[in-house]
Formats: sequence, structure tokens, C-alpha cells
Amino acid sequence: MSLEDVENIKKRIENFKKTLMELTEAPDSQETAEHKVREMSAEVVDSNPYSRLMALQRMGIVKNYEDIRKYTVVVVGVGGVGSVTAEMLTRCGIGKLVLFDYDKVELANMNRLFYQPSQAGLSKVTAASMTLTKINPDVKIETYNTNITLSTQFEEFLNVLKTGGINGDRVDLLLSCVDNYEARMTINTACNELGLKWFESGVSENAVCGHIQYIVPGESACFACAPPLVVASDIDEKTLKKDGVCAASLPTTMGVVAGLLVQNSLKKLLGFGTVSWYLGYNALSDFFPSMMIKPNPNCSDNFCLKQQLEFKNRVKEEPECTNVDLPEDIVTHENNEWGISLAEDEPTASSNTTELAEPLKTENVNNSARSDEEYLSLNDGIEFAYPSADQTAPNEESLVKETELNVDDLRKQLSLL
Amino acid sequence: MSLEDVENIKKRIENFKKTLMELTEAPDSQETAEHKVREMSAEVVDSNPYSRLMALQRMGIVKNYEDIRKYTVVVVGVGGVGSVTAEMLTRCGIGKLVLFDYDKVELANMNRLFYQPSQAGLSKVTAASMTLTKINPDVKIETYNTNITLSTQFEEFLNVLKTGGINGDRVDLLLSCVDNYEARMTINTACNELGLKWFESGVSENAVCGHIQYIVPGESACFACAPPLVVASDIDEKTLKKDGVCAASLPTTMGVVAGLLVQNSLKKLLGFGTVSWYLGYNALSDFFPSMMIKPNPNCSDNFCLKQQLEFKNRVKEEPECTNVDLPEDIVTHENNEWGISLAEDEPTASSNTTELAEPLKTENVNNSARSDEEYLSLNDGIEFAYPSADQTAPNEESLVKETELNVDDLRKQLSLL
Repeated sequence: MSLEDVENIKKRIENFKKTLMELTEAPDSQETAEHKVREMSAEVVDSNPYSRLMALQRMGIVKNYEDIRKYTVVVVGVGGVGSVTAEMLTRCGIGKLVLFDYDKVELANMNRLFYQPSQAGLSKVTAASMTLTKINPDVKIETYNTNITLSTQFEEFLNVLKTGGINGDRVDLLLSCVDNYEARMTINTACNELGLKWFESGVSENAVCGHIQYIVPGESACFACAPPLVVASDIDEKTLKKDGVCAASLPTTMGVVAGLLVQNSLKKLLGFGTVSWYLGYNALSDFFPSMMIKPNPNCSDNFCLKQQLEFKNRVKEEPECTNVDLPEDIVTHENNEWGISLAEDEPTASSNTTELAEPLKTENVNNSARSDEEYLSLNDGIEFAYPSADQTAPNEESLVKETELNVDDLRKQLSLL
Repeated sequence: MSLEDVENIKKRIENFKKTLMELTEAPDSQETAEHKVREMSAEVVDSNPYSRLMALQRMGIVKNYEDIRKYTVVVVGVGGVGSVTAEMLTRCGIGKLVLFDYDKVELANMNRLFYQPSQAGLSKVTAASMTLTKINPDVKIETYNTNITLSTQFEEFLNVLKTGGINGDRVDLLLSCVDNYEARMTINTACNELGLKWFESGVSENAVCGHIQYIVPGESACFACAPPLVVASDIDEKTLKKDGVCAASLPTTMGVVAGLLVQNSLKKLLGFGTVSWYLGYNALSDFFPSMMIKPNPNCSDNFCLKQQLEFKNRVKEEPECTNVDLPEDIVTHENNEWGISLAEDEPTASSNTTELAEPLKTENVNNSARSDEEYLSLNDGIEFAYPSADQTAPNEESLVKETELNVDDLRKQLSLL
């Protein structure tokens, strides 16, 4: 048998295998239904995929873990962060997952987790859906191979958010895992209009910084309240990209950001711990800045202004609603206009919810302290660079200079220098 | 055709598929060699799996990314943290990966990332090796389906560490991703004997705390210098486990810990940023404590004492070797006996290595300040509980009480209360 024959046989086996894969592994409602676990059992047996999650109840972390099945989460962008985010939610047994992406899997994506080289060429949402359905057929997965920034797609996107919930109601949370400002602004517009809570996430072009940000329309700054300079300057970000140059990325940074994103989503959905408003990650120094940004009263998004008014009215009517996402035992620092929380000996959350001895604390970045007085007020949002390194376009020297100046201004205002 | 016939056909297709998988996907040196990428190209094309990693050089983060191919990393335990750790290293293109585990994949592992339900029943190292080889055939993967804590296996384990390097030399780094103290102590013994640098990692039984710790024999505390109370008290940890009770776990916490572990490993191997000595993660409050623990001069491990002596001699001969793993611009706080680093306005690392505007810092857990004066000295190591929540056995009330007392003692010494 010649080498060519061997090659041909190999190729035929490979093709046959792919056909078999498609026949036997394509999401088939009848077949997956057979594998579905009807109940989230806490039984400790090797065959129970939920035993370690239901144990969160016995450990006193979560009151009713099974509530997770009620929720629908939308993930926009299933690339380096979004795909891992979707896998984590799937393994946690989320009720329904709605995925948006218009990109295809490439070999150049293989330096991040999740996709396999054999999936190159498939659309990301199809590849993701196939893998996720195999991992946990209990999760309802809906995919949209569309670009939400196209004006023709916006109505459909809005409609999915309005009616994509597990019972045809509004979805519960949106996670932005996109890599460009235009898509973030589109998500921001939609969430402001609907008053939908969402998390923003991002990783810097040099791969060693990342962040997540929790946006509650009207309560915290939206993406337009303190936009990145590129957006504020009305620069088309596509013009910033150079041929033959690509952003760096690492599976580590992407994995950490996805982990922090889903962890905070679980805290929000299942009501445990403290949800971080903004949490940064600087991989070079293992530095995790945290803060809260108040909405900009001069925000350019009219729906944001409307949500701000509604939030103020809600606070007047039910004063406790300011603390909807805050723990009961928050620490209030009076006369702390800029919301800077200092190192403390005792974080508030960990001691209440775990029976374990606490870790030794040398310092504490306390981000559970978020009283009204502490909100970081941005009175001139439109001129500020977004207060995060990874939100700037690093390849344009002039832009970097301007951005640094702006961050310095902001820092001076914060009396940090 | 009856329902039974359909079931039979399905089963036969499934079996046939598995046989095909084994035939075509088993690591075959000749075949994988064909797929190997000979050179780590920086070319920006969709088909280049290394373009985003090589971009780290252009971004000024890493001097020579391709160096990663010289290194051999041993991962002991490929469960919730170890499997993701191995996948990250594989996607980063590490030279050689050596995996140790004696466990099998179970459906009860499906709430964590990496393994697929179809792999249930396979040994973890085989399942991991199959997946990793498909992801990146450039990485040399060696597996040991053995329990390193068995006295019969220790010599082999030691030998692998001594000669398992890419050129038959010593391996470069060991990552401990095990879930029990016995295995940690075994690793500790071996690494002290060889003077091999390693990272410890762990996740708490309530799933919401985790940590990584960098151990340089002689320079920082080894696992026996400040052992967990269970180890110090000579209690058999197996007796602590109850039937029908299991630890909780979350893919989020495991993913974050694996990300921090591999990120710090990359920093160590490729020489960028600052390697954290100890970095904790409390998911409830997004709190990330960091510290450095000095070796215990009364450590029970004789090889540790020998390494401490050798380290002291090296410092005498070449004073700069104390800073081997430290950045050049470390901040020294005189008269800070306990090594507590306070919040600072400017972390040292980020501003040097990135051209991006820095993230706005409200507080800073500064762990780059690690001069000799700052080391945390443990004079009475053997009686201390390990200073981390997740290192205790939470199911035994009496143990928890004792541990809390010990942590309190430690905290008092640290003047934190």
C-alpha cells in the first residue's frame, strides 16, 4: 500500500467520522431529552453531575441552588471570554443560554480555552452549541449567528432580550463578552431601553489586564456615562486596526475574567456574597482594583437619563431599594465623597457565609462598602477616558497620550496623587 | 423497526464511533508529528495558532515568547484545577507537560471545566492526554496513572522530576493541583530534596475560596514549615470524610485559581511581571489577599533545613540572589517586621511593562514589596494552622474551633486585630 493510499484511507475515515458526528451528536431534542436529568439531586454518587453544586446548599453558601434553572442568561460574543463563560454557566446548570456571535472559529483562536482545532471553519455559535449540548443536555441553548451592531439586527436583538426568557418573558441577565466598543454601545442602548441588568467585560490588547463591570441601568454608570475616549471622540475604531498586527491574548487572563464574570453572575442570580460593581485584574502585579461609578447626569443616552429618574423615584418610594444588590451589613464611611474604601481588617462577607476559618488578611480591598455617599460621581462624563487601561486603543500613540492625561485628571480629582 | 432495534443501532453506532476515535485519535507520534508547527510564527493569519501569543513580544510584555518550548512543567492532579491548568499550558505551547493522577473521570466531575461526559470511565490522565494532544500536537505530553503517595511510587515520582525535562534534565516547575494534604506533603518532600520550585494550589470545600502559593525551597516557607492543623496533629484526613457528604465545587472558582496559577507560572518561566508568593481568592467579596511566608527554622523536613542553609549561603555569596524572583524596582519598607504591605497609589509592575493608560486605582494590594525585612517570620511553625481558610477540614466542628483559635493567634501576632 502506497503512502498516498494510506493518506486517502485516513481522509475517508476522517470524513466518515465527521458524518457520524453530525448524525449522532447534532442537537436532537428527542435524544437529548432522554439524557436530561429531571431533578437537581444532591445525592452523592459518581453518576450525579449536580452533587458538587447542590453541596453549596449544605455548606450554607446558597439557599436554593436549583433556582438556577429558572434563569436565562444572554452571552454576546463567544470568543476568548464568552465561550468559557458559556461553558461555566452550562456546567452550573443554568436554565437557558442565548448566544450571539457572527464570527467563525479559526486556528488563531486556539491559544484560548474552549474551541478545538477540528471546529475551525464552523460558526462560533454552532461550535459552542454542539460542545455545550454534549456537556449538559439539561441546558436550553439558543444561538444567533448575527452581528448585533447591524441596524437591521437590532430589533431582533431587542426582541430576544424582551421575550427570550425561559417562559417567554424577559431574559434575566446579559453578559457582554465582545471585543469592540460598537457592540458594547449597542448592548448598552438595548439594556438602557429595557432596564436590563448586565455585566460588561474586557481584556486589554496586551493580554495582561482585564475587568468586569456590573451595570444596573439608572443605578450605576452605563457604558455611555463614562465612555472610552475612542467612543467619546467619535473615532471609527476599525480605522485603528493595522494590517499584519493583532492583539495579544492569553488563556489565563481570559479564564480569570470569565471566572470572575460568571462568579459575580451567580452571586447576583442566586443571592449570595457581594456583587462587585467594577473589578479589574492586572496580571503583572496580581492587582485587583474595585470601584463603583455613579451614573452621569449628562449621559448622552436618553434611556439612561430616564432610568436614572426612575431609580431616584424608586429610592424615594422604597429607600431600601438602593441596597438591592448590596449586602445588609455594608460599611458606611461618612464624608468619603469619592468612594475610596481603605484597607480594613475584616471583610464583611466571608465571615457570615462560611464555617471555615477565615484566610489571614494582610490587607483588604473592600468593595462591599457602597453607600450613596461613596459613589464615585462623574460630573463631566463625556470628556473622561473610560477609567480602565484595557478600554483604550493602545496602538495609537496620540490616543494613549490623551488617555493618560485624562486618567491623570481623573486621578487628581480622586486625590490619589 | 421497533424502538429496541433503534436503540441497538444507536449503541452499535456509538461503539463503532468509540473504536474509530481510538484508532484515529490515540496519540500517534508519527501522525502528530505531521501536524506539528515547527516554528512559533508571529505571522497574523487565521491559520496560525501562535499569532496571539507571539504578539506578547510586540506588545513589550515578554522578551522571547518562544522560550516556552524549552520548559517542562509537571502537573500533579488533573481534576478541577489541574485539568484547566494543563489545558492553559497546552494552548500556550509549553514544551513538555507531565501529568500525574490515579483517578477516573466521573459524571460527578462535569460541574467543572475540561472533561466531557463521554470520557466518564476513562482514567483522567488518558482523557486529558487525548484532549490536549488534539488541541496542540506541538506539546509533548507524558502521563502517569499513579498515586504518588504510595511509598512504592515515590522513587518513580522523584526520578521523573529529576530526568523528565525536555532534554532528559530536571523538570522546570511543578504545579500541585491535588485535593488532599498527603499528596501535598509528598510533593513537598520531593521538591525539598531536589530544590525544585513549585506552586501549591487549593480550593476550599465550600467552593468559594482558593489560593496559590509559590514555594522556592529554602527561600519561602515549604508546606511543612506551616502545615495545616490536620497534618500537624497527625490526623488521618481520610477519617474526616463522611459517607454521603461531598465537597462543593464551582467551575468559576476552579477556573480563576487555574488562571492565576498558570499566569504566575508563565511570569516565572518567561520572566515578566511579578510572581506572587501567596495569592488568595475569596469569591464572596472578591477579596485577593497576598503575603509571603518565610521558611520555618524549625521545619520538620530536614531537606527544607538544608535548603534554608544553602539559600543563606547563596545570599552571602551573591547578595543579589535574594531578588531572583523579585522585580528590580521593589519598594522596601524598613521596620516592617511582619511583611504587611499597605495600600499604595502606584503598583510597580504595570507602569513599566505596558503602554496602556493604567487602570484607575482606588486601593492597591501591593504584593511586589518583598524585601528581606518584610518576610513574614513564623517562629513556631509546627503549631500554626495553615494561614488559609481552604486548608482546613470544615466538617469537623472541633477542628474548625481549634483552627480558628490558631488563626486568631497568628493574626494577633501580626497586629491585625
